[in-house]
Amino acid sequence: MTIELTFIPALLVILIAAGLGRLLSKGIRQPVILGELILGMILGNLIVLADPEPISDIAEIGVLLLLFSTGLSVDFEEFKRLEVASSIVAVGGVAVPFVFGFLVAIIFGFSVIVALVVGVALVATSVGISASVLTELGMLRTRIGALIMGAAVVDDVIGVIIMSALVGIAVTGALPIMDILLLVAFAILFFIFSLTVGIKLFRKFSEKVHPGREDLLMLGLVIVLLFGLVTKEIGLAAIIGAFVAGLVIGQTHFARRLREHVSLIGGSFFIPIFFVWMGMSFDVNAFTSVGSFVIVLIIVAIIGKLVGCSFGAKVSKFSNRESLATGVAMIARAEVALIIAKLMLDFSEGHPGIIPFDVASSVASAILVMVIVTTLVTPPALWKALKGVRSKNKVGVGKIDKI
Amino acid sequence: MTIELTFIPALLVILIAAGLGRLLSKGIRQPVILGELILGMILGNLIVLADPEPISDIAEIGVLLLLFSTGLSVDFEEFKRLEVASSIVAVGGVAVPFVFGFLVAIIFGFSVIVALVVGVALVATSVGISASVLTELGMLRTRIGALIMGAAVVDDVIGVIIMSALVGIAVTGALPIMDILLLVAFAILFFIFSLTVGIKLFRKFSEKVHPGREDLLMLGLVIVLLFGLVTKEIGLAAIIGAFVAGLVIGQTHFARRLREHVSLIGGSFFIPIFFVWMGMSFDVNAFTSVGSFVIVLIIVAIIGKLVGCSFGAKVSKFSNRESLATGVAMIARAEVALIIAKLMLDFSEGHPGIIPFDVASSVASAILVMVIVTTLVTPPALWKALKGVRSKNKVGVGKIDKI
Repeated sequence: MTIELTFIPALLVILIAAGLGRLLSKGIRQPVILGELILGMILGNLIVLADPEPISDIAEIGVLLLLFSTGLSVDFEEFKRLEVASSIVAVGGVAVPFVFGFLVAIIFGFSVIVALVVGVALVATSVGISASVLTELGMLRTRIGALIMGAAVVDDVIGVIIMSALVGIAVTGALPIMDILLLVAFAILFFIFSLTVGIKLFRKFSEKVHPGREDLLMLGLVIVLLFGLVTKEIGLAAIIGAFVAGLVIGQTHFARRLREHVSLIGGSFFIPIFFVWMGMSFDVNAFTSVGSFVIVLIIVAIIGKLVGCSFGAKVSKFSNRESLATGVAMIARAEVALIIAKLMLDFSEGHPGIIPFDVASSVASAILVMVIVTTLVTPPALWKALKGVRSKNKVGVGKIDKI
Repeated sequence: MTIELTFIPALLVILIAAGLGRLLSKGIRQPVILGELILGMILGNLIVLADPEPISDIAEIGVLLLLFSTGLSVDFEEFKRLEVASSIVAVGGVAVPFVFGFLVAIIFGFSVIVALVVGVALVATSVGISASVLTELGMLRTRIGALIMGAAVVDDVIGVIIMSALVGIAVTGALPIMDILLLVAFAILFFIFSLTVGIKLFRKFSEKVHPGREDLLMLGLVIVLLFGLVTKEIGLAAIIGAFVAGLVIGQTHFARRLREHVSLIGGSFFIPIFFVWMGMSFDVNAFTSVGSFVIVLIIVAIIGKLVGCSFGAKVSKFSNRESLATGVAMIARAEVALIIAKLMLDFSEGHPGIIPFDVASSVASAILVMVIVTTLVTPPALWKALKGVRSKNKVGVGKIDKI
């Protein structure tokens, strides 16, 4: 039984669900995002939106503001210092799950092309989850906060590159080398330009103008949408642009006030709607098809990131606790995995000889279940892991807590 | 030549237009809303939205937040004291324009039914305009602020009642007396219940809970949507509910903090989008059909409110300057007039014998032009009139400035 809702009622119900989710989370001492996701999941199976477009657009602004706010809060110097370490963590977290996923699919008797799809689906982390938990614990300005966010960004870029490679192969039958080179070139140009010339320009600008709080926030929103649009245009995710926008503005006079304003407007409306919306997109019917493959897939999805990322962090001389927390932070999968599943379904419709539709459909369900489970286990696990890091450092070394 | 835009680009362009509009307004010392409306009008003729639904929904939240914030800021004691005065102003501002509009249409040779439509189209004030200018001048907590907002609310209720009477006549051929009585009864119940029991309940609640700023704002948004939904369900406009929500919460411990948060989230994003969106809906092509009827219609639309409302205020012992400002504040027409015009067009399609389509079409264009002109002249005129009241009271009586 489902109820159909138009915009204002739907928005109201979603906001109430978010509020209840937060209360629930605080009651059981868990990150607020967990309650928002779970309430969203319940809601998604009770109501249908008459016109989902406006809600999904508000949710999209939500994830942009989350990453903008994260970028504003990260310790930029630390972020730059940890560039190499972040890249090692990201590469480890991409390579190990890919290999694990590929092998598991082969062992379960799937074809090489399906196994490739499964491997790629395990690659990209859902950065919003870690960003939200780090924010709630006030740990964005720590070393490990900078490491996790840096790794998440590199991970996302690699994920997009691998995805476009896979799409190119599916569409033209060949690796789209030119497209990939172009994407990489644009990405590098964007990062370098934003973090050098961009910072200088915005810093000068912020010294000259003195906007009131409403005008400042409006300006911040214009900047985050602009950066998001640019990264989307060059083929990266819009959230990468939003994060970089935060890094850039974080180095200007606007930083402190804007951080406060963005966290208010984001945290009270847009970001909770994003997470409830994410929960609503989880179709619990996918669980009816749970078999041994799904269970193994979930296990390798978790272990793959834990091993790959923790190893990367350990190599970069982080402590055991910190390395573990870094691995945990990267477990959640979302958008990229779901897009991959969708692409496979579309491909199978056109080429049932290469991927039979029943195979595509059951693998897509397995990927969806993996996404749901990894998304729901990450917040509480990361919460616990980061609290461990924090308490360890408070009594011990103390080099992390610069909040 | 128009360019089609999807959501994020459209949102970006609208926000930039709003920002430029504000800069422009401040440059020429005019209320920000004037620049937002004008930039919106320019924008509306340059771009087309691929999917206007999400933007219009954000604009709807904008006008709800504007009225919520207005309700939060109005001096409630003054508002109650001025109940009778507000009603006199509203009734004067309804009766005079209606009679003027009706007579002008008859003189120009239109049938009685068309003349009724023209009269009704002149009845309802667009409350957002006055609310925005009062907010910007910081005059919501003054006596005249309470008078104008009170009159605007009563005016809106009367407008809705007259509109439903007209619709009833058009659909069934008879006055829908039961519907009207029910609407009036529900409206009275809603106001009494909200402003007595509602205030008590929320006051108690606000003493018991101590939400953080994000949770408080989220709670405020839930309340405003809830009140808006209730008034919409009983047949009044959602903005009336939003305003009453503001009045109610304004009497609780949440008032000060919530006022600050709502003005930030509203003023930086939702409200500017509402006004740019309103400007975008103005089709400048309507001006091509401007004839002597349109010009006379605009004149009586302006004089009707000026005479009716100023007279009402004067009767209630407000000064000449204050009475004039009250009249000016009620000049702008928008939603109700446009809905009336649309209803007439629909009716004429089904009953060309009663209202020929070319007559309906030209009268609808005339109403649209009247809406555009009254909306654009009100902000600067009210700005000037209110500044006159403020400066007069600063040197003189001084009983108004309680900001």
